[in-house]
Amino acid sequence: MHRLTSKLADPGHRTLAFGGDYNPEQWPESVWHEDVALMKQAGVNLVSVAIFSWALLEPKEGVYEFDWLDRVLDLLHTNGIRVDLANASASPPPWFSAKYPQSLPVTTDGVRLSYGSRQAFCSSSQDYRRVAAALTVAIADRYATHPAVVMWHVHNEYGCHNQPCFCDASAAAFRVWLQRRYTTLDELNEAWGTAFWSQHYYDWDEILPPRMSGAQINPTQQLDFARFSSDELLDCFKAEAQILRARSSLPVTTNFMGYNMGLSQPVDYWRWAAEMDLISNDHYLIAEDPENYQDLAMVADLTRGWADGAPWLLMEHSTSAVNWQPRNIAKIDGELLRNSMQHVARGADGAMFFQWRASKSGGEKFHSAMVPHGGTDTKVWREVCELGRVLHSIGEITDSRVADVEVAILHDTDARWASELDSHPSVDVSNIAETRHWHNAFWRAGITTDFRRSTDDLSSYRLTIAPVQYLMTDAGVANLRGYVEQGGHLVVTYFSGITDVNDHIRPGRYPGAFTDVLGVGIEEFFPLHSGETVALGNFGSGRVWSERGRAGTAETLAAYSEGDLCGAPAVTRNTFGAGLAYYVGTSLDADTLAGFVAAILGRAGVAPVVAGLPAGVETVRRSGDNGSWTFIINHTRDEVEVPVSGVELVSGADVAKSLTVQAGKVAVVRH
Amino acid sequence: MHRLTSKLADPGHRTLAFGGDYNPEQWPESVWHEDVALMKQAGVNLVSVAIFSWALLEPKEGVYEFDWLDRVLDLLHTNGIRVDLANASASPPPWFSAKYPQSLPVTTDGVRLSYGSRQAFCSSSQDYRRVAAALTVAIADRYATHPAVVMWHVHNEYGCHNQPCFCDASAAAFRVWLQRRYTTLDELNEAWGTAFWSQHYYDWDEILPPRMSGAQINPTQQLDFARFSSDELLDCFKAEAQILRARSSLPVTTNFMGYNMGLSQPVDYWRWAAEMDLISNDHYLIAEDPENYQDLAMVADLTRGWADGAPWLLMEHSTSAVNWQPRNIAKIDGELLRNSMQHVARGADGAMFFQWRASKSGGEKFHSAMVPHGGTDTKVWREVCELGRVLHSIGEITDSRVADVEVAILHDTDARWASELDSHPSVDVSNIAETRHWHNAFWRAGITTDFRRSTDDLSSYRLTIAPVQYLMTDAGVANLRGYVEQGGHLVVTYFSGITDVNDHIRPGRYPGAFTDVLGVGIEEFFPLHSGETVALGNFGSGRVWSERGRAGTAETLAAYSEGDLCGAPAVTRNTFGAGLAYYVGTSLDADTLAGFVAAILGRAGVAPVVAGLPAGVETVRRSGDNGSWTFIINHTRDEVEVPVSGVELVSGADVAKSLTVQAGKVAVVRH
Amino acid sequence: MHRLTSKLADPGHRTLAFGGDYNPEQWPESVWHEDVALMKQAGVNLVSVAIFSWALLEPKEGVYEFDWLDRVLDLLHTNGIRVDLANASASPPPWFSAKYPQSLPVTTDGVRLSYGSRQAFCSSSQDYRRVAAALTVAIADRYATHPAVVMWHVHNEYGCHNQPCFCDASAAAFRVWLQRRYTTLDELNEAWGTAFWSQHYYDWDEILPPRMSGAQINPTQQLDFARFSSDELLDCFKAEAQILRARSSLPVTTNFMGYNMGLSQPVDYWRWAAEMDLISNDHYLIAEDPENYQDLAMVADLTRGWADGAPWLLMEHSTSAVNWQPRNIAKIDGELLRNSMQHVARGADGAMFFQWRASKSGGEKFHSAMVPHGGTDTKVWREVCELGRVLHSIGEITDSRVADVEVAILHDTDARWASELDSHPSVDVSNIAETRHWHNAFWRAGITTDFRRSTDDLSSYRLTIAPVQYLMTDAGVANLRGYVEQGGHLVVTYFSGITDVNDHIRPGRYPGAFTDVLGVGIEEFFPLHSGETVALGNFGSGRVWSERGRAGTAETLAAYSEGDLCGAPAVTRNTFGAGLAYYVGTSLDADTLAGFVAAILGRAGVAPVVAGLPAGVETVRRSGDNGSWTFIINHTRDEVEVPVSGVELVSGADVAKSLTVQAGKVAVVRH
Repeated sequence: MHRLTSKLADPGHRTLAFGGDYNPEQWPESVWHEDVALMKQAGVNLVSVAIFSWALLEPKEGVYEFDWLDRVLDLLHTNGIRVDLANASASPPPWFSAKYPQSLPVTTDGVRLSYGSRQAFCSSSQDYRRVAAALTVAIADRYATHPAVVMWHVHNEYGCHNQPCFCDASAAAFRVWLQRRYTTLDELNEAWGTAFWSQHYYDWDEILPPRMSGAQINPTQQLDFARFSSDELLDCFKAEAQILRARSSLPVTTNFMGYNMGLSQPVDYWRWAAEMDLISNDHYLIAEDPENYQDLAMVADLTRGWADGAPWLLMEHSTSAVNWQPRNIAKIDGELLRNSMQHVARGADGAMFFQWRASKSGGEKFHSAMVPHGGTDTKVWREVCELGRVLHSIGEITDSRVADVEVAILHDTDARWASELDSHPSVDVSNIAETRHWHNAFWRAGITTDFRRSTDDLSSYRLTIAPVQYLMTDAGVANLRGYVEQGGHLVVTYFSGITDVNDHIRPGRYPGAFTDVLGVGIEEFFPLHSGETVALGNFGSGRVWSERGRAGTAETLAAYSEGDLCGAPAVTRNTFGAGLAYYVGTSLDADTLAGFVAAILGRAGVAPVVAGLPAGVETVRRSGDNGSWTFIINHTRDEVEVPVSGVELVSGADVAKSLTVQAGKVAVVRH
Repeated sequence: MHRLTSKLADPGHRTLAFGGDYNPEQWPESVWHEDVALMKQAGVNLVSVAIFSWALLEPKEGVYEFDWLDRVLDLLHTNGIRVDLANASASPPPWFSAKYPQSLPVTTDGVRLSYGSRQAFCSSSQDYRRVAAALTVAIADRYATHPAVVMWHVHNEYGCHNQPCFCDASAAAFRVWLQRRYTTLDELNEAWGTAFWSQHYYDWDEILPPRMSGAQINPTQQLDFARFSSDELLDCFKAEAQILRARSSLPVTTNFMGYNMGLSQPVDYWRWAAEMDLISNDHYLIAEDPENYQDLAMVADLTRGWADGAPWLLMEHSTSAVNWQPRNIAKIDGELLRNSMQHVARGADGAMFFQWRASKSGGEKFHSAMVPHGGTDTKVWREVCELGRVLHSIGEITDSRVADVEVAILHDTDARWASELDSHPSVDVSNIAETRHWHNAFWRAGITTDFRRSTDDLSSYRLTIAPVQYLMTDAGVANLRGYVEQGGHLVVTYFSGITDVNDHIRPGRYPGAFTDVLGVGIEEFFPLHSGETVALGNFGSGRVWSERGRAGTAETLAAYSEGDLCGAPAVTRNTFGAGLAYYVGTSLDADTLAGFVAAILGRAGVAPVVAGLPAGVETVRRSGDNGSWTFIINHTRDEVEVPVSGVELVSGADVAKSLTVQAGKVAVVRH
Repeated sequence: MHRLTSKLADPGHRTLAFGGDYNPEQWPESVWHEDVALMKQAGVNLVSVAIFSWALLEPKEGVYEFDWLDRVLDLLHTNGIRVDLANASASPPPWFSAKYPQSLPVTTDGVRLSYGSRQAFCSSSQDYRRVAAALTVAIADRYATHPAVVMWHVHNEYGCHNQPCFCDASAAAFRVWLQRRYTTLDELNEAWGTAFWSQHYYDWDEILPPRMSGAQINPTQQLDFARFSSDELLDCFKAEAQILRARSSLPVTTNFMGYNMGLSQPVDYWRWAAEMDLISNDHYLIAEDPENYQDLAMVADLTRGWADGAPWLLMEHSTSAVNWQPRNIAKIDGELLRNSMQHVARGADGAMFFQWRASKSGGEKFHSAMVPHGGTDTKVWREVCELGRVLHSIGEITDSRVADVEVAILHDTDARWASELDSHPSVDVSNIAETRHWHNAFWRAGITTDFRRSTDDLSSYRLTIAPVQYLMTDAGVANLRGYVEQGGHLVVTYFSGITDVNDHIRPGRYPGAFTDVLGVGIEEFFPLHSGETVALGNFGSGRVWSERGRAGTAETLAAYSEGDLCGAPAVTRNTFGAGLAYYVGTSLDADTLAGFVAAILGRAGVAPVVAGLPAGVETVRRSGDNGSWTFIINHTRDEVEVPVSGVELVSGADVAKSLTVQAGKVAVVRH
């Protein structure tokens, strides 16, 4: 993977990226000069340009107009601001959609979407692919050697607004994908279980996308269509990336979108990550979530997982409110800095924003920006400048990595997507919610966690959590089995390891993937009523789920203490090989989970970076070839005394034995 | 009507049917042998086969492959297990839908549904009808004389997944149906009231199904389209049944679906019942309904109504959780037996399940089955075996009928469908909810009720309830009038007898059908606010509805005691001929209704099968040419002492004066 | 503007209109005679005829059948009942829609709606326009000189059921409209801000209606499409009105629908009003709104605004329940009279109903009428007759105007529509809700308010309120600035003056339109959480919204007293020129608003018509060339002593110093 910073930094310096999406085409040229002056004032060193410029760059098929973009790039370069240049393929112009109406995406119930918004195209459209490629060639040819350009920004938030597509072209492409996957119809019929409900296929041409029908669609068909849709879109990326790489050695990326891309908008970032030179991600707070900073921490950890631990880039977040939530609540004092520093602490080598200057028109004009409508005498602008200063003050951490992570959380895309299929035991079961529930417990305990796949090498982790990993491949089963045998501690929750790669039930008692490793066997699921809890005696209580089963070789740590399952095991621990395997058969309530996490951390010998801090004081360590740093972000309303020593970089102060971090403040201590 | 058991039983024996849907095509042949061994262990004597086998039985139009089905039927026969054989027409294979895309159903807003689920066809499709008929001929020709086959299972749950259809073929068929009904356009215009909103039709070809429009669709058009849709689907059944009957004397059935088939999925089971040799029904608990066993009792009574009192067959229920509800809560210990025995007590000559072996793939893999994923060392399997044993122990009740029913509840299909039309006084008014409310009150009082139509002979009932029988035909009016004149006691609730067969308001004060019989006249409806109650003085209180009216010849039993209607009659009683007619102008709350039901039962001289039992101890009597039996199902959490004597068949114990039935247990006492 | 009453009244008399929609075609001719007898009994003097008669009047294109309508009009005339005659164009018959299927409207997701309801046509359909015009010609030619006819009722409730339409014909008409508005594509691109999201248009033919897309549609495109849709429908009205006016000097109207016509059903009544000879309006209570009589008062005031203060006609309201709400709750004793008198007090020269006789069939059969299903021995009929008598007793007020109004509330259509666009700071912000909130506060204080546009002459008002006037044109800004400079008192709420005519953000601090007039500058919006309130110290509290800003020249009347904005100004007052400008940066809770309104009224020197009355006693004054009258409507549950003197017209009693008005009663006192 490329080092972004080698391109960004002045020779001999380490520099964190700071800037945002810059859309000068929305403003008269006179504003551009104010823009660069303000960028310099704030310490901006990188901007993303031309993401939505297709309509202006190519007014007619094959006719390109680059003059205005030349002037923008020259102006930025003259002022020492580097450019993450888009290939502008994200949003086809009206002329394109009007000329190629079959390129517009079609919904599951057959509605062909219109343009007039953004990103309205079918990823299987050959017209789209051809014209987007030609545009990419033109941009690459013109700007590959422009001195301002330091990286390539392919497209934008793939899959967010036009995916999946159910048109006939998509159907044809889906069949090609299926032929590659299954070779024969017999294999497809077996994988999809078409003996059920009279769905046997005798000809490839009979196969369709999972279009709207009168009852549940075949689940494996749905799952394969999600996999296909992700791959089809990835093909778009790969084609454009290839054009850029053939003309330039600059790093190529596209901006990911955290865990947003579920079954209904499927993008498998684990597969996509392999095609990136640099992982970049967009993250927006859910404003009405009172612990949205913990959600941020989880998404940052997930992004670092896709980057395989390497530094990544926060391509977009917001300086304050967004415009697409029901109530777009603004950030309070200091929140912008805390959020940004959380990302950096967790591996980001920079903090970028959507967008530089707030739009005066269009669908995002109420989205906050670095330069708000109100101008520079504003809280937002002052905090933007402060962030620029802070990032500059900690530039030495560039290229370092998050260190000392001993706990992994599993997050397989297939497990998540399959868990979101219909006709499951309970609508209250959520892979994302249960994952966040566990991440939150570790976060509150001061423990940084990595996200890994079930098939990844886990040997460096003392403890691994498998939350609602419903679908588990044979390779995943074998890997986790080996992990425990070799001494790892594994926690498996309810509704994990239930099905195989084709979403077929693994035979025998549940969870078929793990009954031997866990030493338990479940015979029947007992989902709880909406809002219901179930008592676990002194251990605590559970939500969402319960089940009837029995502990075989496992020791029962908690049993249901009321209701029809009274006495049945709820939480167990089994010795398997050199390791331990825990099973958690319900969604433990937050307090119960906190206690359980403390216990399993203790047993695994895992301790926080800084011990003894209250929940809400976030501490993360990064280290590199030039040092080691502890990030401290105080989300609480009280000041906190942190037992660290070294140099606090933001203030430049020496820290002897401990550091007082005020409520809402951040600190970075070099050891 | 055929006697199923004459086919099922060994000569000289009475045998209750026990088994379920058997889908061997989902499993390798090796599993089939384990299947029959387990069936014998559990006492299974009947399985339904080939319901979803079309795709495998006819791989190409006109080409049939029966070898595998031959082997299945032979294996079952060899092991003494009888077969309810499907004609396999329920779910057209992909090749059919791909070849005949016009056969796919169309929604009210014009979306042609796709296949990839099940049962995707338009009932007016001539292609579907032709190919389904050919398949039925082929199956009947091959298996009519197979010794395993004892009955025919036409299609499956008609109307559940593809009805109604709004395509052009349906429109053409609708016109033919209307021409038969009305002969002239003048009659249609009068019946539909097309003078309203400028809807006069001058040509039959102008008439369309009630496709989506900008405001409310003509209500009579909607109602006629529901009637048509039911008839059109019934034509499908009749055509296939005729083929079978021409080749076989075995009984023909299709599985009904309780009260599910409302206005939006219209199937009029009263009309359908006349075409059946045997009534069969599917019933699934609503898991989150805390009194779902009462719902079960109501559906069983309704099914017996369609069977005109004759024994019927429970074709499907579940051993535990289903897969299509929001939270698919499992059955607790003993619930499977209690549920099954409720059906049998209320007239079922058997208890069958969907399905024999839990699927490993497809949309119903989390639906419970007789053989669960977890195998035979499970609660479910043990309870299945116990049920087989219990059914065997009470085999003597076969062919008996539910006895001593003196209360009828009216349930006209047109009344229910019309009550579900839009633009009514209150969305809180529900024919099904009010019907269940009354059934529940009788159920808690230990009184078994029959369901009848308004036009049925009611002379054997002391008491008849008309709950929200909004639409009432002239024949119904005359019949109920005669019933009261002859001495019957009739209870009419609010929003009953409001309109005629064409959904035209019956003139004068409400309810126009019954003002003279009831001796009241209502001038204006006052629906209550959401969640509001209205006091009725000492009598109790009401919900949902109130109204301004006056008692003429009737005596006021309860008046509104608060609000703007204070003093207006809410509940009245009128002497009419030799009978009594009660009017209930609000939805009485449960306690108020219990008191009122006790009073009207006393006045009518109706007593429970076993007096003095607490609510929740369900008692039903069946009797036949060989005896009389009292079923006792204890749904409470306490044991109960039941004053009966005879022989308890499940245990074989003699009962002298009373029987103790433990909490959650069942008993069947022969007198 | 015509005087309706000059046509209605017998020579020398002043008469208020009283009657309703009369649909004799729904009944046999024998009923017509009972109808006119009852009309005379009730004092009916005007009925609207033929609104939905197209199908009967024109059985085939170009073939007209007027005989039955001749008989109806003759019968009415013979009995002295005048006719508001419809041109019957509202609802095309089935033959029309079947013959011209392209005339049916299309939804945003491409569904072409069906007929079988009402008013199913696209307003851009040339076929509809041609055939509707021909029908109008035929009706005008036949009835222009009929002595019964006193006014023309064009169409019915334009825009309620078929608007807007997204078909290709609409797209073409939209382009023509845009070309008139913008002349060049460059201007359109600038106005729509198409540089955002790559939406630049290079050809007019690329422009489409805002059909469904994958993300937010361009907001200016949405707004222009609403403006276009209103204009396109207005063209339909104008064409038909022109035909009538060419053949008749009678006044022409169409019935408006209060504030119902928001962004999704856009009709800009301010523009439409200019085309009317007489403003008429339909109003229906929201039954479950506990203060629906205040809503009525607001709609009546709004209608008077469209009429520019002239008398208007209440074309439709209901005698009791309607049929289209979830729970259609009936009116209680006296409510019918109170509602009717509220309309008259606020400028209506009459009270008409939908409809005369309750339908026996069709979609509105449960809508109340003047003659209910239950006939004349009913509360409704008695109250109808009482209303007729009361209207007769106050006939002298005819042609008078609402007097002494010193407070205006601004209500720009563009401001309202633009406020309803998506991607705004909070879904809880509502132009209508905030407007009603302020109207309610004045209503409870006994102050009558006028509704005006921002561009209207406001010099007669001491106080003007601008509630959520989000979009403000330059002309509006200038007018309001001048109003304050000249001494007016102006209140501007949060989210007002934010954008210009193209929905572009006005630059600088918010609200860009008014920072100088208000002497405040807001830098960032802080919408509140759902249900959250924010404290304002002793001043009270706010809801929905808060913001970070600073008072410049303004005085801070209230500041946020908790949370992150603590100390920031919430309510301010600025002296500007000779006037005062208040800014209210949150939605004040009802009590806080009441206090604030009392204060600003005091400062502006505005007093109620009758001082010292409790909230809920509604008093309004009308005056004319023949006198001045105070209307008193007592909505409370207590009698009230009102200090007035003169003659009370309903009872005919002299009033010396004060009048006691019983709970729920009305009075009209001539001074």
